[in-house]
Amino acid sequence: MADIFEKSVIKHAQWKGKLRTVLNAPLDTKEDLSLAYSPGVAQPCLEIEKNPELAYDLTWKGNLVAIVSDGSAVLGLGNIGGQAALPVMEGKAALFKRFSNVDAIPIVLDTQDTDEIIRFCEILAPSVGGINLEDISAPRCVTIERELKKRLNIPVFHDDQHGTAIVVLAGLINALKIVDKRKEEITVVVNGAGAAGSSIINLLSLYGVKNFYAFDRQGILNKERNENYSDLKNELANITNLNNEDLTLAQALSKADVFVGVSVADVLTKEMVASMNRDAIVFALANPNPEIKVELAKKAGARIVATGRSDYPNQVNNVLAFPGLFRGAFDSKATQITDSMKVAAAEGLASLVSDEELSEDYIIVSAFDNRVVDVVSQSVIKKAIAEGVVREGVK
Amino acid sequence: MADIFEKSVIKHAQWKGKLRTVLNAPLDTKEDLSLAYSPGVAQPCLEIEKNPELAYDLTWKGNLVAIVSDGSAVLGLGNIGGQAALPVMEGKAALFKRFSNVDAIPIVLDTQDTDEIIRFCEILAPSVGGINLEDISAPRCVTIERELKKRLNIPVFHDDQHGTAIVVLAGLINALKIVDKRKEEITVVVNGAGAAGSSIINLLSLYGVKNFYAFDRQGILNKERNENYSDLKNELANITNLNNEDLTLAQALSKADVFVGVSVADVLTKEMVASMNRDAIVFALANPNPEIKVELAKKAGARIVATGRSDYPNQVNNVLAFPGLFRGAFDSKATQITDSMKVAAAEGLASLVSDEELSEDYIIVSAFDNRVVDVVSQSVIKKAIAEGVVREGVK
Repeated sequence: MADIFEKSVIKHAQWKGKLRTVLNAPLDTKEDLSLAYSPGVAQPCLEIEKNPELAYDLTWKGNLVAIVSDGSAVLGLGNIGGQAALPVMEGKAALFKRFSNVDAIPIVLDTQDTDEIIRFCEILAPSVGGINLEDISAPRCVTIERELKKRLNIPVFHDDQHGTAIVVLAGLINALKIVDKRKEEITVVVNGAGAAGSSIINLLSLYGVKNFYAFDRQGILNKERNENYSDLKNELANITNLNNEDLTLAQALSKADVFVGVSVADVLTKEMVASMNRDAIVFALANPNPEIKVELAKKAGARIVATGRSDYPNQVNNVLAFPGLFRGAFDSKATQITDSMKVAAAEGLASLVSDEELSEDYIIVSAFDNRVVDVVSQSVIKKAIAEGVVREGVK
Repeated sequence: MADIFEKSVIKHAQWKGKLRTVLNAPLDTKEDLSLAYSPGVAQPCLEIEKNPELAYDLTWKGNLVAIVSDGSAVLGLGNIGGQAALPVMEGKAALFKRFSNVDAIPIVLDTQDTDEIIRFCEILAPSVGGINLEDISAPRCVTIERELKKRLNIPVFHDDQHGTAIVVLAGLINALKIVDKRKEEITVVVNGAGAAGSSIINLLSLYGVKNFYAFDRQGILNKERNENYSDLKNELANITNLNNEDLTLAQALSKADVFVGVSVADVLTKEMVASMNRDAIVFALANPNPEIKVELAKKAGARIVATGRSDYPNQVNNVLAFPGLFRGAFDSKATQITDSMKVAAAEGLASLVSDEELSEDYIIVSAFDNRVVDVVSQSVIKKAIAEGVVREGVK
């Protein structure tokens, strides 16, 4: 592991940037210049002034996403600030290009003020076709995303929330087939009630899961603790722990079919796993060290274990979601990424594992499966058109 | 001319963007992902957190410029807004890449508020190695540029002001050789006291020109009109019209050796040119139609005529300046682009025309002369190092 870190610094120093810009129009002659730039370019400008929608046809806007971060919650590193977060955002932009041919530019901010970030993105919006918020701490990230969705008519997506949720839902859809349980009847314990945890609960709930227990660092979410909650936690308290029980994590797990951890290493003991309902499903997504080691969870009786790691089966990797999601949003001319589009993306992703292939160690396809972007984007396109959340001029 | 405009729209619709992003790091295997992205990327982040200077070595920041515009003064089109200005900014970004291999991203803004633009650029700054302001109306553009130069330690440059000024100075240096006049003794009339006009006067003044008359739409700048002036015009009034004369444009020209127009078509008559001192030098830079037609100016006795047009000799084209200027600023790790660096760039550019080649129709080299970027950037690098305006760790 230490090797990877050292080697990454060496490679980054060689690359001096994991991205470059390139020309997509010739600039070799005077005529080239007069078409791509002055004086000819005046006419595309005037066309867009008359009809702003034409910016999508006459510039790179329609294929361009800004990866925006204030560096307040980067990987497992915490608040390292915008400048230090640039290698991650640049990497994310490279992933967009690699997996879905979406052009992406990393934008790291010299502010962590919620209102300033919202206004910054609003001012930036004409430049891009979508905004991918990244590594912004909760609950600010939720406030920022929701406000931008109200103010802008381009897709806005906070990957740390919804990317993970989509892949977890895809995995859960397949896992439930193996254990032969119905989504309406299972109980899901989610440990971690921040950006990712809240989106997982919301998305699974939208999909049809009814029973949740959610835990934050102070314990189980319930109605009594409401006065100290952020708006986000109040929402979660309303759709989880329906009987308002006062349970420890261990007590909740003894009633659970599914555990989803988006928290910290080693909080899940083998006794807890052993106490879960038959054919327990464990998503231990803390990175790089999961809530319980895979071998230990299996030994304790978990039937299916998924983690964030690439060296174990069933990797929950956001790269399975965001490239196809934006590809689909761009190709359908979607004005937003709705919850139903996220569910559709998860169902599409789940469908890539055939009934014949489906097994405890194969509920989620690999990040390098070259069918992923097509299936996810097509699912998103269908849903966007069905919901009618597309720009004018598109059927 | 109409053909160029129609054809430009057709080409833009084919290109769907004159720029793309491309990968500069492999992302084909799990190991590639673990080096360029999670988990390996954590280490470059931590290195930058400890030493922000390393962002220049470990990301694309050090070769990246943001082309920022609010669309308030675009080409000759006026205030068309940020969205409609995107084709121009994208073209500018493409020119940066084509001529100096500088990566550039077009950023068009959904605000025209001066303070918001300043704050936006400040928040954006960690993402980029430099900011090129573009097509922002005067005098706001001057306020924005000056404030950003104070707040940021990356190069900030408003091309509409200084790009034109650098090329005019280069042309003037060579023109004065032909007519055998000394810079200290000439009188220069500048028509247009906005972004470009003010920078031309400032730069020529820094170079050693002493006598100017400056005109805006209301007439000659003088000390009496001060109460109605912007700060910018007050500055100009202080270094022009030293005897505070009340002259018409025609009267001023009868005392002038050089005319520089950054104004509107056809304001210069052949009588005015004929009244100028011997061997008159005319920079008629209004675009696409100059202050006087080239043939007319020549007929009236002008010895040297330069315009903004590519179909006449002596084209004053900003592309001769900004690519090499940023190339030099980036390669020297300059923290700003100083006035002396601009003069050095102009002198370098002028030096490309040898004494043997120098003629009335060849005072400025072509935009496609492939020596331009090297000469300009080397001149800038030398000056940056001599002035010591470079980031730590550089000799």
